[in-house]
Amino acid sequence: MVWLCGRQVHFAFEGSPMRELLEHLQQRSLLLSEGDLRRMVQALSRERDIWQAAGACERPFPHFVALLETLRDMRYLRVEGNTLEFTPEGLAALEHWGIALSPPVGGLCPSCSVGPAPLPELQTKFSQIAQARPSAALEFEQGFLTAESVIRRVAWLDRCGDLVQKEIVLLGDDDLLSVALALTGRPTQIVVFEIDQRLVDFLNDQARHNGWPLKAYQHDLRQPLPEKFLEKFDVFVTDPLETVEGFLLFVEQGLSALKPGAGQAGYFGLTKIEASPEKWRLFEQRLLGQYDLFISDIVRDFGVYENWPYLGETASQQSAFFSENPDRPWYRSTFFRIETLKEFQPPRCRSLGEEVDIYYDQDSIIKPRR
Amino acid sequence: MVWLCGRQVHFAFEGSPMRELLEHLQQRSLLLSEGDLRRMVQALSRERDIWQAAGACERPFPHFVALLETLRDMRYLRVEGNTLEFTPEGLAALEHWGIALSPPVGGLCPSCSVGPAPLPELQTKFSQIAQARPSAALEFEQGFLTAESVIRRVAWLDRCGDLVQKEIVLLGDDDLLSVALALTGRPTQIVVFEIDQRLVDFLNDQARHNGWPLKAYQHDLRQPLPEKFLEKFDVFVTDPLETVEGFLLFVEQGLSALKPGAGQAGYFGLTKIEASPEKWRLFEQRLLGQYDLFISDIVRDFGVYENWPYLGETASQQSAFFSENPDRPWYRSTFFRIETLKEFQPPRCRSLGEEVDIYYDQDSIIKPRR
Repeated sequence: MVWLCGRQVHFAFEGSPMRELLEHLQQRSLLLSEGDLRRMVQALSRERDIWQAAGACERPFPHFVALLETLRDMRYLRVEGNTLEFTPEGLAALEHWGIALSPPVGGLCPSCSVGPAPLPELQTKFSQIAQARPSAALEFEQGFLTAESVIRRVAWLDRCGDLVQKEIVLLGDDDLLSVALALTGRPTQIVVFEIDQRLVDFLNDQARHNGWPLKAYQHDLRQPLPEKFLEKFDVFVTDPLETVEGFLLFVEQGLSALKPGAGQAGYFGLTKIEASPEKWRLFEQRLLGQYDLFISDIVRDFGVYENWPYLGETASQQSAFFSENPDRPWYRSTFFRIETLKEFQPPRCRSLGEEVDIYYDQDSIIKPRR
Repeated sequence: MVWLCGRQVHFAFEGSPMRELLEHLQQRSLLLSEGDLRRMVQALSRERDIWQAAGACERPFPHFVALLETLRDMRYLRVEGNTLEFTPEGLAALEHWGIALSPPVGGLCPSCSVGPAPLPELQTKFSQIAQARPSAALEFEQGFLTAESVIRRVAWLDRCGDLVQKEIVLLGDDDLLSVALALTGRPTQIVVFEIDQRLVDFLNDQARHNGWPLKAYQHDLRQPLPEKFLEKFDVFVTDPLETVEGFLLFVEQGLSALKPGAGQAGYFGLTKIEASPEKWRLFEQRLLGQYDLFISDIVRDFGVYENWPYLGETASQQSAFFSENPDRPWYRSTFFRIETLKEFQPPRCRSLGEEVDIYYDQDSIIKPRR
C-alpha cells in the first residue's frame, strides 16, 4: 500500500507483483496505491480505443495519462493513432499481475444504455440448476431474487470490474448467486457463508458435480467469520437484514473479509419497503464515517423477488387489504456498491449473542412470532 | 413538518393542504412528515395494483398499510381484491394536494428493466430545438450532454417522482435540460440560473415562443441565489464543477433553493474522470454529515457528453497520445440523486470572491490558462 501523503512509500511495494510499475510511476512523482493502479490497468485491458479507456478507467485523467506513458516507457504498451495495444512483454506483465485479457461477460443494454444487457443463455443454465433448490424458509427470513435479477447482479459485478479473476465471498446465498457467478467461469474463488444447511449442501453438491471453485460453509453470521477468511477477498456480496443491528452485522462482516487498501468492492441490497429513508441515511453515514471507502453505485429496483410462500399469511395479519396473494413480483431492492480506498482497514467484528433481535423492527413486514 | 420524536406535533399541520390526512394518521399513532406522505400518495396515484403500489411507495410497509386504511376510512380510496381506486372525493383531495393523476412520461426499459425506456419522440423534438443552441464555451468550462442523455435525465426525474407538478430549479444549463423538461408539459415551474448570457437569451426566447413556465436568469454562482428563490423549490439539478470548492458551491446552492423538510430532491452529475474516489468520499461525507438527507441513487455512466471543440487542444497539452480527436463520445458522468428528510434545513450560502479558483485542481483535464 502507498499513501499519497508521503508516508510509507519506499518499502510499500515489496511483495506486490506490480512493484516495478509502481516504482516507475513514483519516478514521475505519482504515488498511486496498488488498488487504484490495478483498476486502471484492468480498464485499459478491456478497451482498445485510447479515449474510451480514459472514460472507463474510473480514475482522474492526469493519472491515466501518466499510466499510459509509463507503460509505453516500459515497452508494455503501444499506441497508434487512437488504438492501444499491449506488447508481448505487456501481456506477460498482465498475466503476472493477475489481470486477464478476457472480454466482458455482457455488454451495455442496447435499448437504454443504463443497465447491463440481458444474458439469456446464462439465465437459462442458471434456472435449470436452480429448479432443484430448497424452498424459502421463514425461519431465516428467506425470499429469493428472480433468476433475471440474479443474472443482472452477475452482469453488474462484471461491469464494475469485480468478476474476472476475483476472489468473492457471499454472506448468505438463498438467491444462489454463487451458482450464477460460478457458471461464468470467471472468478478465481467463491466462498459462501450460509446459515441454512440445506443450501450449504445444495451448493457444495453443485460445486463438486461441476468442478467449480466454490465452497459453502454453514455459519451463523452472529458469529464473526472464521479467522482464516478475514482480509482475504476482493469482493463481498450480501443481502443484509434491514434492522439496524442486522444491517451493520452483515455489511461489516463483509468488510471484515476484504483485503486492506484500495480497490476492493462490497455489494448489498437494501429495500425501502422495510428500511425507512432515515435508516438509509444512518447506514450511509456509518459506512462513510467509519471506513475509508466511498459509495460508487446505488441502483434502484435492481433486484426483484419471487413471491414467497409465507407472504400472504404474514401480510394479511397486518391488514385485510392484503388477503389476496400478489399475481406477480412486487418486492424489490436497491443494489449498493461500495469501493475501498487506500487506508481501508477491515474491521474485526464482535459476536452478537442470540438474544439480540436482528430480524424485526418497526419497519418490518413480518412481525416476530418466535 | 412533524417530527417522529414527538416534538412539535399538534400545530405542525397548519397551512398544509394535507392536514386532515396527517391528523387521521396521527390518531393511528403514526407521525409522518408531509413530505413522506406526499411521496407515498404520489406512488399510490400511479399504481392500480395494491402490491405494486406497496413496492413502489418507497416507504416502509407498515406505513403504507396505515395510509391505505386511513384513506379508506376517509372514503377516498376503495380496494377490491388487489385493485385500488380513488373515489370522486379522493380524486378531489388529490387535486387539492397538488398531486396529478397523470400517467408516467415513460416506462422501464423493456430490455434490461434497469434504466428508463427511451423516449424517441421527446428526443426528436428536443434535438430540433437544440440545433440553434450556442456553441460550448471554454470560458465557462462548458461541454454538453448528448440529446439521448438529456432525455434520460428527464425520464429519471419522472421515475423518481420529481417531474409532475414540481417546481424545478437548474443551476447551470448548457445541456438545455430545461427545454426537455418543459417539452413534457409536466413541471409547474422551471427556473434556470446560468452564467452565460447567450444561453439565458436562448432559453427565454424559447420559453416565450412556446409558452413554457420557464424563466432563465443570468447569474454567477459564486454569488448566493437571489433571496426570493431561496427555499422555494421541490427539485434542483446541477452539474457542479469538480474541484472541492466548485462542487460544494453548486450543490449547496441547490440545497439552499429547496423547501425545508422531507421529500425534496437534488440531482447532480459527478465524473470519475476529473474527481478521484477520495473526492467522491469527501462529497458524500459532507452531504450526509451536514444535512438531513440521504443518497437515493448513484447511476454510473448515465450522462454521456458530446465531444467539445476545445478538447483536442487541451488534452494534447497533457500528452502527445491525445493528439487525435475521439471519434465518438467518451466523457461520461454518474448521476446522483439525494432526497431530503424531515429535519432538512436549506443552508444559506456565502459569496465566494472571484479570486477563489473553483475551476481547476490536480484532477482536471484542462489546466488553467487564465
